[in-house]
Parts: sequence; C-alpha cells; structure tokens
Amino acid sequence: MWCIKKFIFVWLLCFRSLIMSSDIKSEQTCHLSNTLIEEIDSYAPIVQRIINETIQGSFKGNTWQDLAIFVDKFGPRFTGTQVLEDAIDYVLNKSISFGLENVHGEPVTVPRWVRGSESATLLQPRHKDLALLGLGYSVGTPEEGITANAVVVNSFKELKKRAKEIPGKIVVYNEKFISYGETVEYRSSGATRAAELGAMAVLIRSVTPFSLYTPHTGMMSYGENVTKIPAACITIEDATLLQRMSDRGETIVINLKMQARRYPDTQSRNVIADITGSSIPEKTVVVSGHIDSWDVGQGAMDDGAGSFVSWNALKLLKHLGIRARRTIRMIMWTSEELGIIGANYYIQNHTLENKNLQFVMESDTGTFIPQGLKFSGNKLVECILQRIMLLLAPLGNMKLDSPCDGPDIESWINAGIPGGSLWTRDEKYFYYHHTNADTMLAENPKALDMNTAIFAAVSFVLADISVDLPHNYTSENVFIKSP
Amino acid sequence: MWCIKKFIFVWLLCFRSLIMSSDIKSEQTCHLSNTLIEEIDSYAPIVQRIINETIQGSFKGNTWQDLAIFVDKFGPRFTGTQVLEDAIDYVLNKSISFGLENVHGEPVTVPRWVRGSESATLLQPRHKDLALLGLGYSVGTPEEGITANAVVVNSFKELKKRAKEIPGKIVVYNEKFISYGETVEYRSSGATRAAELGAMAVLIRSVTPFSLYTPHTGMMSYGENVTKIPAACITIEDATLLQRMSDRGETIVINLKMQARRYPDTQSRNVIADITGSSIPEKTVVVSGHIDSWDVGQGAMDDGAGSFVSWNALKLLKHLGIRARRTIRMIMWTSEELGIIGANYYIQNHTLENKNLQFVMESDTGTFIPQGLKFSGNKLVECILQRIMLLLAPLGNMKLDSPCDGPDIESWINAGIPGGSLWTRDEKYFYYHHTNADTMLAENPKALDMNTAIFAAVSFVLADISVDLPHNYTSENVFIKSP
Repeated sequence: MWCIKKFIFVWLLCFRSLIMSSDIKSEQTCHLSNTLIEEIDSYAPIVQRIINETIQGSFKGNTWQDLAIFVDKFGPRFTGTQVLEDAIDYVLNKSISFGLENVHGEPVTVPRWVRGSESATLLQPRHKDLALLGLGYSVGTPEEGITANAVVVNSFKELKKRAKEIPGKIVVYNEKFISYGETVEYRSSGATRAAELGAMAVLIRSVTPFSLYTPHTGMMSYGENVTKIPAACITIEDATLLQRMSDRGETIVINLKMQARRYPDTQSRNVIADITGSSIPEKTVVVSGHIDSWDVGQGAMDDGAGSFVSWNALKLLKHLGIRARRTIRMIMWTSEELGIIGANYYIQNHTLENKNLQFVMESDTGTFIPQGLKFSGNKLVECILQRIMLLLAPLGNMKLDSPCDGPDIESWINAGIPGGSLWTRDEKYFYYHHTNADTMLAENPKALDMNTAIFAAVSFVLADISVDLPHNYTSENVFIKSP
Repeated sequence: MWCIKKFIFVWLLCFRSLIMSSDIKSEQTCHLSNTLIEEIDSYAPIVQRIINETIQGSFKGNTWQDLAIFVDKFGPRFTGTQVLEDAIDYVLNKSISFGLENVHGEPVTVPRWVRGSESATLLQPRHKDLALLGLGYSVGTPEEGITANAVVVNSFKELKKRAKEIPGKIVVYNEKFISYGETVEYRSSGATRAAELGAMAVLIRSVTPFSLYTPHTGMMSYGENVTKIPAACITIEDATLLQRMSDRGETIVINLKMQARRYPDTQSRNVIADITGSSIPEKTVVVSGHIDSWDVGQGAMDDGAGSFVSWNALKLLKHLGIRARRTIRMIMWTSEELGIIGANYYIQNHTLENKNLQFVMESDTGTFIPQGLKFSGNKLVECILQRIMLLLAPLGNMKLDSPCDGPDIESWINAGIPGGSLWTRDEKYFYYHHTNADTMLAENPKALDMNTAIFAAVSFVLADISVDLPHNYTSENVFIKSP
C-alpha cells in the first residue's frame, strides 16, 4: 500500500467518514423499494453457492495455495524488474487458460529505482551495524558513504527547534508510532524537511507499532528546490537506542552507504481479465489489487493477497458458470508502490468509461478475517450494500464501514464513483508491511477464502442487479434503471 | 537461557512438578508453628519499604535505566570477547562504588567460538538470500561454501524414513514449534542426526512461535564419532518456503558459507558481590543471572535483565541500609550461553559451602510482569515461601509454582538445595530469545521494578529468618534453628 500523498486525502475521507458513520448509526432505516429489496434478496441462493464453494467446496484453500505458488515462484515483484513482467505474463497466461475474457496487459511507463547495496554503521559511541532499508526514490551516497554526527529528534517540532544543529548532520527521526496515516509523514517528507535545514542524510524510525528488529521500506519524495539527501528507515530498536545515547549527551557518529539510484523509466503493464457481461457488457464492476510489491519479502500480503482475492473471485464465478449482466473486470495494477503509477495511468486513459462504472473495488490493506466491507458512496449505495451484507450472513455478521480504502481506486472514488474495499481485522498489517516478513506466514487460508467469497458475491450481485448505482456523493438519490 | 541438555532435566523436573503441583493444590494447609508464622509476618513493614522504594520511591525505574546504560554501552557480551570482560569490570567497579562487599571476579576458563561472516543462498528453484544465524560450536564451511541439494524434513521421524536421500545433502528441518523444551532438540542434535546419515550441513527452522523474518541462534553440540557438519538456524518464513517448494517436487539447491571457528579456550570471570550477613555471614542466599549473552541483539532480556534484577536487589537493600543475618550474594555468571560454563565451574569449586546455602535464586526466563515465584524445595520450603508471598501483596496476588527454572543454579537444585526463580507472564520470551530483537524494547520498567522488589524482599527475608531451610526434597521436614 502506497501512502504518501494519500494521508492528506485520508484526512478528508476521515472527515467525511465521521459524517457518514454518524449517518450509518443515526439513520438505520433505508428507503429501498420493496421490489429492489426482493431483487437483492433473490440473490441469496447464488451467494450461498459462492460461499459454499469457497468455504467447503472445491475452492476451499485455493486462494492461499494459488498465492503461495505465485509468490514462492517469483518472490518480490518490484517495479522495473524482469521478475514483475514475468509475474504479469504468468497471470495473463493463466487467466486465458482459466477461460477469462478480454485478457490483456495495458502498457504503462513506470519509474525504475534500484536499491543497490546499503549499510549504516554506528561508529561512535561504539561500533554497531544498524539494519536499514533505503526508501523508494532516495538518492544514494558517495561510494565511501556519508560519515557525520547524528542529531536525534523525536518530532518535526524538535527538528525545527534545533535547526541550528542540523547543517552537516545525519538526522535521525525517532518519531512515535501514532497511526500509519499520521506517522508515515516522517518517511514521506522527513528528508525534505531535514535537507531544508542543511542535513546530509536522514535515518527514520520504521513506521510500525511492533518490531523484531524489523526495518520497513516505503516511498519518499523530495520537495522542489531542495537538495536531495539519502533517506532510509532503521528499526525501532536502533532509533530508540540512538535516542537514549543522544539523551545521555553522547556524541553519535554514523557512516551511511547507499547505492540507491534512479534509472530511466521503463515499461510495465496493468493486467486485465474480464467475465464479460451478458446483456450490458459496457457497464463494469471492477475488482482489483496491485501485482507489484516492494523488493523485500514476498509481497504476499502487500498486495499479492489482494490481487489474488480479486483474481480468484473471477475464477470462482467462471468455475460456477455464473455470468452477470454487467462485466466484472479484474485488474492487477502495476507499480502501485512507487506512486500508484499503473492505476492513475489507467484511470486517466479510461475516463470516458467512468459513466459505465457501476462499482470499483480493491483489497490492499490486508486479507485477515473479514468484518465486512468499507465503502464510499451515497445513502442509496449504502442501503443497497447493507442489504447485500445480509446475503453474506453464512460468513458471519458482515458489516459496513466508510470510507473505502484502496489507493489504486482513489481517483475513481474522488470522481464520485462508488467503491468498496475489504474491512478486515487488520491489527497486524503494519507488522509485516514493506518488510522481509511480508510472506505467506502473514496469510491465513480461511481468511483468504472468506475474502474471496465476499469479492465474488458483492461484485456479482452489483454487476447483475437491475439498477445502476448513483455516482457522486452529492448526487440525487435516484437510481437509473439499467436496460 | 541455555537449554540443550537441560530439556532432559526439565522433563524430570516436570514429572516432579506434577507431583508437587498436586501437592500445592491438594494440601493447602501448612503446619508452620505460630512462632514462625509470626516471625515471617513481622517482615511486612520492611517488605513494604522495599516495595515502596522500587515502585514509587527513589528506585522507581532504576533497573530499566541502569540496564539500558549497560547494554547500550556494551551491546552483546559474547563469551571470549573483550567486551564481556569490559562489562564484567564495569559491574565490579560499580559494585565497589555502591558499597557492596566481597566484590570480586572469580576466574573461569571458557570456550571461544567465533561466528565470522555467514550466508545461505537459495540457488534453485530461484535465487534468494536466506537470513541465518550459525549455531554456537558449529564448524564452518570451506571458503567457497557447501553447495548441495536440500532435503526438507519436518521431523526426525521423516529424516529417518528418508535416510537414503540424505548422503551429500543439506538437511533443512522445518519442525513445528511445540514448546521450547521440546522443539530445541532439533537445534541441539539436528546436526548429529543428519551427519549420521551422511548430510553435508543442516539448516534448522528457528525455535520460536512467532517470527518477523527473525533468525534465532543458540547452542548445538556434536555427538561422539560423528562428522562435524555446519549447522545454522533460518527463519520460519524460509523454512516453510523451502517446505512448500519441496512438497511441489522442486529441486532445491543451496549454497551455505560459514566462517564459524573454535579457538583455544580463554579466561572470563564470574562476578560476585555481597551484603555480608550481620551474624551468620557464612550462610548465604544467592541471587543471580548471567552476564554473558549471545553475539546478537543487546542481551537485554537474556540475561541482562535477570542479572540487573539481582544486582539491583542488592543495591536497593544497601540503599535502604538493610542488612540480614545471613549473607546475600549476587552472582553474575559468565558463559552461560555456551554451556553453563561459569556456574558449573563455581558450583564445583564451592561444594564445601553447599551446606551453608540457604536459598539460591536466578532470573533467566524473562522479566515480564511477575506472577510470583517458581521454587524447588520440600513442603516446608513451600510453606515458608507461601507465607512470604503474602508479604508481596502490595505487588498483586503473588503465587507459587514449581519447579524453579534457572539453568545456572540447576546443579545446586539437583544437589537438593532449595531455590527459586521469577514466575512472570513470559508469553513473548521466545519471540526475542537469541535474536537481534533482544534489546531494551523487550523490557518494561514497571515489570523490572516489580521483579527487583521480589528478589530483594524474598532474598532478605530468607537471609534474615531464624530457621535454615531444609535441603533435599526427601529430607525430613525439620528445621534447624540458626544460632
């Protein structure tokens, strides 16, 4: 999950969420017509079939197994690597062999950033290797590295207060983890803020609530007209160690070496596979995740699992021989981790089709045991989804929350297209996120089955239902009946 | 905590524990004389002072702070390194400055094993670096490493069954974590068992219930008349990855390079500091932990914290000006991790003093929030400790369990000397144990204060009380009144 500029947007969404959540609480009554209620309820048998097939039928355990084969075969799938393109070919070829339709890759120009070897060594007050992961887009250091005294700060406020000490130093941010959305700002703009004050490099405490000496990578960006200085994340363990040394008045000297380098842009592809609609194929429900990952771990959780929940939802519907009136489109986005490159490219180049988008879904915040769906949309969308949630009762009490949370579909949501994402018990998401620990151990077969069933069921019902969902949060609560 | 031969002993203790636990449950009534009960109860004000001083007084937070200064200054303190000897000097000098008595280091001959650089690389079916930590006493590989096909087994039973496949291979053990005591057998004797069947090397799944791509080290040993083959632990993530590849029938080729090497024995010291008894100084209560650690992390939890709880118990009593009738001796054992070297040497060379040992304590299984004390001793010991636990009520409901758990004091316990160890909520001990994550983050100031108070209070009361605790589990339940 890429989250740099996003956090500002998340605040806006959160604000809207407050209003919407209170809506959900205060206005329990939905005024759907009896006909529409009956229509939604009539999908109960088909949803039951979908659930049965994933939870106890021939698809049981499939998503976990398929994902394991994929991530074990390819490992991490970083933007600009051949292995990502091989993984894309794999999904395209398999999609064809499964009988999915309109299977193709849509070319996207993507950045190419290469980590290279990297090390950080504490030289004073004692010698110690500091585990680190350079941040995406960071520049490297000279070959001999940067050796400088460190200034440890626990906030941007402290950085500003100690501005006079910063020139020529390595700034170590030991910021407390509040929430990902809030704390990631240190990773995103920590280099820029320190560079503005004359720092040589920054080492940032990894953005996570828990660590077993686990460095986390992620994206950063440089402000305009600022010297680009190297930026990497270190572990909570080492950030707090350096803080204590600093608090004791000890002189801290660090050598940082990073070969990180940006190369010319290259080509990748978004992966598309459809189950074409039977009567209004131009109208579409999208299910999606991103196929690229960071260059560490296996990219199993972020976002192999989200992609495979989407892909297996289509494979499951195909297997069951269920075809909706609208098209259900699976998209695996490319280069999400380096700035939502694939999704933004696709959305910008398909704006004419926006009017035909019925509902857009993504899973990119973990595939733990589901609690329901997070959605963005107006009251009528909410009411329809609430009714659909009742169909998922065999999976437990599935609830609605708002807004939806999918970085790749964000531009669509901003354009007023209703969308949804998985709502799961994601307590440990940020334990694994962007680390070497993002492997199949973070994934649970039962949870993946449940999430696959939810994506299959929700996308099918919304693709088949007789009404088009209204766009825009401010739109009239009026349905347009599909032909 | 060193646990190789120990697990056999633990089984014996567990068996005894079953009997003793049922004792604790079935026979709630203790037949202590009213005089003795009154005597124990009379320590309530002094125990209250000890607790007040640690929980809300001038010692609040001290153990955490002192430990942080120590482990931040020295880092890991591996047997045979100068840094361990420097750390020992630090404790000796500080002990003198605190006014502790009989402060000295007792020389011990210790082994010297050096890890050197090490790497494991998966070459087929795809290229991947495998994080690893070589095991203590393992031999190294030739310079170019060992490149061989891997055989992945999930148990010794499977190893035996596939004996014909083993010659010339690297055996990967993907054993499930049951409990440390049970599962550590793979780390301890996995190399020997595989070597007996002709294996070239072993890679063992780290002995832990949870991992964030965290390799764990620890000790291993070679059986007699067996070819010594290199042995290292890999992460759960990679062990299960290799298992899945193997299950799919893929050929797995690994290159293992280890520079590990044994050097001639060298010298270290057990650290001793006393508060000499006021009237029967030859009789002693021991509080202890081990000062050495593995060569990764900071050795904060294993066993910096245990050592510092013991040390600070003495510092606290000194600070409060409380001197017991018997001597309270703090021992920081050296070279526990390479086979309980320091403690066994001390105990063998002080057998004549065994008769004067009133009670021996160690903390080496974590210093989380305490639940009470684990003890080894007969019914009378239990009854006295039960009464003492009531004095600790200001810390919560402190309970007794059995047997005690301290690798260094094990030989004394085996000789029938009554002993105790902290009983804490140690759920996460094996997350951190023998890893780079064993740092101050694993330690909690409040828990350390509580444990320090327990060690200070229990050691003081037992050192001051009018009766000698009986030795031997089978001894008569008769007290000998101290002069």
